Formats: sequence, C-alpha cells, structure tokens
Amino acid sequence: MSSDSDKNFDWLHRGTSEIFPDRQDSNSSNENLIERISQSKKPLRVKLGIDPTGTDIHLGHSIPFRKLRAFQDAGHTAVVIIGDFTAQIGDPTGKSDVRRQLTSEEVKANAQSYLDQLRPILDFDTPGRLEIRYNSEWLSKLDLAQIQGLLATMTVGQMLAKEGFAERYKQEKPIFLHEFLYPLMQGYDSVAIEADVELGGTDQKFNIAVGRDLQRHFSKTPQFGLLLPILLGTDGVQKMSKSLGNYVGLREDALSMYSKLEKTPDTLLNDYFELLTDIDLKQLPDNPREAQKLLAIEVTSQFHGKDSALQAQQTASQIVLEGNTTGGDIAEYSLSEVEFPAKLFYILGASGLCKSSGEGRRQIQGGAVRLEGDRLNDVNLSFDSPDDLAGKVLQVGKKKFVRLIT
Amino acid sequence: MSSDSDKNFDWLHRGTSEIFPDRQDSNSSNENLIERISQSKKPLRVKLGIDPTGTDIHLGHSIPFRKLRAFQDAGHTAVVIIGDFTAQIGDPTGKSDVRRQLTSEEVKANAQSYLDQLRPILDFDTPGRLEIRYNSEWLSKLDLAQIQGLLATMTVGQMLAKEGFAERYKQEKPIFLHEFLYPLMQGYDSVAIEADVELGGTDQKFNIAVGRDLQRHFSKTPQFGLLLPILLGTDGVQKMSKSLGNYVGLREDALSMYSKLEKTPDTLLNDYFELLTDIDLKQLPDNPREAQKLLAIEVTSQFHGKDSALQAQQTASQIVLEGNTTGGDIAEYSLSEVEFPAKLFYILGASGLCKSSGEGRRQIQGGAVRLEGDRLNDVNLSFDSPDDLAGKVLQVGKKKFVRLIT
Repeated sequence: MSSDSDKNFDWLHRGTSEIFPDRQDSNSSNENLIERISQSKKPLRVKLGIDPTGTDIHLGHSIPFRKLRAFQDAGHTAVVIIGDFTAQIGDPTGKSDVRRQLTSEEVKANAQSYLDQLRPILDFDTPGRLEIRYNSEWLSKLDLAQIQGLLATMTVGQMLAKEGFAERYKQEKPIFLHEFLYPLMQGYDSVAIEADVELGGTDQKFNIAVGRDLQRHFSKTPQFGLLLPILLGTDGVQKMSKSLGNYVGLREDALSMYSKLEKTPDTLLNDYFELLTDIDLKQLPDNPREAQKLLAIEVTSQFHGKDSALQAQQTASQIVLEGNTTGGDIAEYSLSEVEFPAKLFYILGASGLCKSSGEGRRQIQGGAVRLEGDRLNDVNLSFDSPDDLAGKVLQVGKKKFVRLIT
Repeated sequence: MSSDSDKNFDWLHRGTSEIFPDRQDSNSSNENLIERISQSKKPLRVKLGIDPTGTDIHLGHSIPFRKLRAFQDAGHTAVVIIGDFTAQIGDPTGKSDVRRQLTSEEVKANAQSYLDQLRPILDFDTPGRLEIRYNSEWLSKLDLAQIQGLLATMTVGQMLAKEGFAERYKQEKPIFLHEFLYPLMQGYDSVAIEADVELGGTDQKFNIAVGRDLQRHFSKTPQFGLLLPILLGTDGVQKMSKSLGNYVGLREDALSMYSKLEKTPDTLLNDYFELLTDIDLKQLPDNPREAQKLLAIEVTSQFHGKDSALQAQQTASQIVLEGNTTGGDIAEYSLSEVEFPAKLFYILGASGLCKSSGEGRRQIQGGAVRLEGDRLNDVNLSFDSPDDLAGKVLQVGKKKFVRLIT
C-alpha cells in the first residue's frame, strides 16, 4: 500500500517522536516501517488501545487517534482495542482508585462515550478502515498454562528496568506481582489482533516492545511501535491533565474550547499546530495573536464545525470587548441565590441581564439568548442544578454577558 | 481429635525442625497446632506434595511421609498432592531439564511408581486416612482474573527475598517471571484442598507460608507448616541425593539397603534413628557397631519385612567374612566377557562360583543361589543385559560370593 500523493510519508512523520525498530538503511520490512508500508499487499493493522475506566478525554488523548486517522486515510485498518478485561477485573489489591473494578455495563457505557468523542477524529464510515475489539475476547480465555507461557518470555530484571517499576523498587515501595501482568496483557492484544503497528505515547515504549516480544514468541511478525509526544497542557508547563485544570476536553462546547485555545502560550503554538492540526507548518502566521486565533478556529472546527467555531470566535471577542468597555473582566453572577430547578427566563431576570423574567422570555423567543455561544430557543428551558451552568457565559444580544458562578 | 495414648504429642515433635506459627502461650487454634489438633472435632487435613517428574525416591524423601503416617495413625487425613499440572506444562523457557514437559501418561506412571514405593510407609487401607489428589483438577481451571488475584497477594520484594531467588537476583542471573508462579500454585493447592497442616522440608518454609497467605486471601483458616530436616546422605557430609551417590533408594533390595545402612557414620546415627525409625532414642545401644546393625535392620524391615532384613544381615556378614578370609574385599567378576542374553547357570560357571554350567544348574535347583540375598530358583533364568546385574552380589551357598561388574 503506498499513497501516490505522499511519497515522503509526511503524514507518518508529522509530530512523531519515534518509530521503532528504525533501521534507515534496511530494506527488510521487519526493520523499516516505510518498507513495510510500501511492500505490504494488504492494509496494515494499526493498533491503539483505550482504557475504558474513564470517559473524560482531552486533546492530549486525541493525538495518537489523529495519527490513527492518518493511517486510515492512507488505506490502513485502525484496530481500536477496548481494554475491558482489566477494567472489569480491577486492581485486586484495592490499592488503586483508578483501577477499581467496573461492571460490564459501566465498561460498555464508558467505551461508547469514548468512541462517541472520537467520531470527529476517526473514520468510522469507510468500509474496512476501523475495527473495534474488546480484549476480554481473548484474555478471558487464557488458562494458567498459557499465562505461564507469557510470563516465561520475560525476566524479573527486564520488568524491573521498566520506567515506573525501577523507581518504586529503588524506593522500596511495594510492586505487586500482578502489576507485571499488565504489559503482558497489552502485549498479548497485539498477538491476538495481529498488529503490524502499535501507536502510543512515548511512555508506552516498554509495553509496545513487550508486544513485539510476544508476537515473536508466537511466531508472528513483530509490530512496529510509533510513539507520539505527551501533550503539554494550556499552561505550557505540565502535561495536559484533567486534574491539573490545564486541559481542553473533547466534549467542551465551542466557546469554551475556542476561548482556551485562543490563549495558547507562544511556546506551545508550534507543537499544538503540528500535533492538533493538518496545517502546513511553513504557512503559519508570523503574528502570534493571529496564530492563536487560527489554532483555536482550526481545532474547534474539528469538533464543532467551522460555523460554530467562527461563532465562538465572535462571542469570545465580544466578551473581551464588553470586559474592556466596563474596564475589567466580564461580570459574574452567583447562582447561590437561585432555587433549582430554575427556568432560564428567571435566571435572565435575576442576573440583571434582562429587566424582568418577562423580558427574559421575550429575549429567548427573539433568539437573542446564548449560553457559551450556543443559541437557546426554548422558552421553557429549565436547569436542574447550578452545576449545569457553573463557569458558563450567559449572553443576551451582542453586548450583554455574565459568567455564572456557584 | 486427641490421642489418649500420647498427651505429650511426641509423635508430632519427633524429628520436627519447626512448626509455624507456634505461639506456645496461645490458646487460639489459629496459632498453636496442638490446640488445633486437640480442639478440632474433625480429622485434620494434612497436605504433602509429590513432584511426579521423577520416580527415584530415597530415604530423604521418605521423612515427611513418615510424619504424614504419624498424622494418619493419630486419626487425621493425609492428602497427597500429585503436582501433575506443573509437570505437564513443563518449563516454558526450556532452560531447565528437570522441568521438561511430560505427557499425561508419563505423569500418571511416575505418580503410580512413587505411590507404590510409599506403600510401606503410608496407611493406604484405613478408610478416610488417605486422599490422593492431582492438582490439575483445580489449577487447569484458573483463568486470568483468578491468576491476577493470586499474583496480587504478593510483592516483587517478598518473592525476591525467597531463598534461591535472592542469590540469583544478586548475581544478576535471570529469573523468569513464570518462576514466581510455582510458589503460588503450590499455595493454591492448600486453598483447594483446605489443608490444616502442610508438611515439607525446611526448604519449603516460604512456599508453605505462601499457602497460608492465599488461604487467608480466600477467607479460609490458614494452615500450619510443619518442617522436617533435610537428611544427610550416607557420606555424612552432603544432603542425600541420587546424583551424589550417597543415597539409599526405596526400591533397593534388602541386601543393598542393609549394607549401606550398616555403614552409617557414627555422627549420623542419632539423626537416622530419630528420622527413619520409631525406636525410643533413650534405648539405643551404646556400641556404635550394634547401633548401625539395629538401624540397618529396622529400616530394611520397613521396606522388605523382618525376615528379609535378617537374611540380608546374614548375607552381608558372610560377604564381609569371605572378604576377610581372602584378605580383602569381595572378589569381582567382569561381565564384559559374557554374551547377553545370558543364562544364570552359565554366569555361575563362567565366574568361577561353580566349576561348570552344569554345577550351576544343580546349585540353582538345590536352592543355594542368591542374588543380592534373594534366592533364585528358576533354572532357566536369563538376563538380557549386563545392566541387570552390574554391582550386584551373586552367591552360592553361604561362603562363595562375587560382585558382578561391567
């Protein structure tokens, strides 16, 4: 399989930290991914795993999926592995909250939510371009003899050399034996689905290498590893993470997404363009303010479409303008005085955006009311809890805004 | 269950290196084995494992089985575990010859041979006193989730602290991950059969303790460990082992067994009496030569009956006498000159024990011919190979002997 339009494999290399093995001088498709891609008569099977213990995914998570899409567009098959097996068995030590045991229904619901959020990124429609597999399909069938066979492929020394284990062992923090199973289970996924390539963050190199070893053990052609950088968060300092508050979630509305990305620190602009857009990096605006806006429009468009992105841009600039004309930031209105469930028209009156609830009703009917840039047309719209509104911008017409707080 | 005849539990303590846990001051049957024995309303289940990868068992192996018999005699149930599961999966690294994979038939045959050799030691007949279980019964049914649960009960540090692993890790010799499974599998045997006590050599303390941990993990009452010393070989220096040639095999004939034990070094006599006989240690002969003979008679009697033991004693003393009268050791006759298959009467003539093959026939008919002390009555007896005879003593009447060599 080779694309006539891209002999240089720019799609493969863009934003890629490492491809291994990578013998540049090798003509063997076992050691050179471009040879493998060029020589293979079948689409390659490109693996990427999802941990369905959570559903909050952000732009950092999206990066390997964007690469997966690039493989799809080059004619290859994306194989998305849902790690339902480990999610369902949990961490038997009970020491890890992250690894608490989930029911089969929770895992399915999480996986569905995860996949829904990936719809804007992956090609779900072209036949043969996407396989979604649950790893319980093969892991639940392993017996002790087979598991012994997996364990026998590695030594304690190799496992303890792995990042994470090494430090804990040195610090005499307990490492439970079952933790050694996780890399082997992930590796066995590659055996089961006959992966040609596995994608992952740079922190996945060990696990992907274990997959290679296990494929060799089972007399299959070992996969290539393609590693992508860990995205820094919008603070430009730490890696993007929900708990650090420096993230852009894939489910955020257009205004929120746009507003965060529009403030991307200059030092991150190039990385964000490279990893989160397909824009030619040689064509970026010289003006950093223009570059921020372009980035914000581009990324927001991927998830909400161009129109919503432009609307978000307009709303955001008006918020800034309003903030400037009043000589400060946008006004805040505390919902603590509001009794929930609460009607939208009531909140419009109570917050002072409208002179009364009655004017609130009329403004909704007139199409002048927006929440985070999205127009609200339902006069009877009601909110159950202040959590549904906290932190969001409520707007009437083009010049009146408040940020709702709890 | 308590035996009226032995309030001091001498049968329990005789030759025992360690019982654990052993809180002498505890009245809890969870911490004191004698309390457990005294308070239990049911027979205790006393576990001892057999590794069916080999069939050559010697007096060293017999020691825990003698203790198992003592439990049987006190009314408890011996549960002999045949480790067929590990024997059948072998060592997947192929690095250990000992752990090569055996077929189900080989394992069954080995186990049968092992059990046959234990017939003189264990009580096979009293109802409820013996259970023989193959551990594939439960181990082959474990799935990955259950195995993860087993692995999660232990840390890498605990496992590496185990004797054997510790030195190998320090010396940077590879320890393969599946090796960590063996103690867990043996421990899970205790869960499956609900062991109250597990017997083993002092080198088994770690594995038996793992069994305790796993029983606790599965909310069962943890077993006691009862450890027995590793028997020194007849050289009095190294532990008894077939490969060191310092062993007495359970399948050896009476003469061979008697002759080896009659030479037991003085330093070992007390241990051998304590571990291999039921003789009151306060009643031992003062004369070491007498003590050696008593030991040899006692142990040989266990396996061949008193008559054969006495016959072996007589034969042995005549061999010595003959050796002495000819001013040295017993004469040897090399079978290299004999064409096999060979008739017994021919060997009698060729070796010079008889004047001719004809006299050989007559001596056999007259009941004067013995091989290793056992009378041979079949005039037409033939041997296929010199290996059937090598090292054995052939005897005519009471005073003529040769040792057959190859």
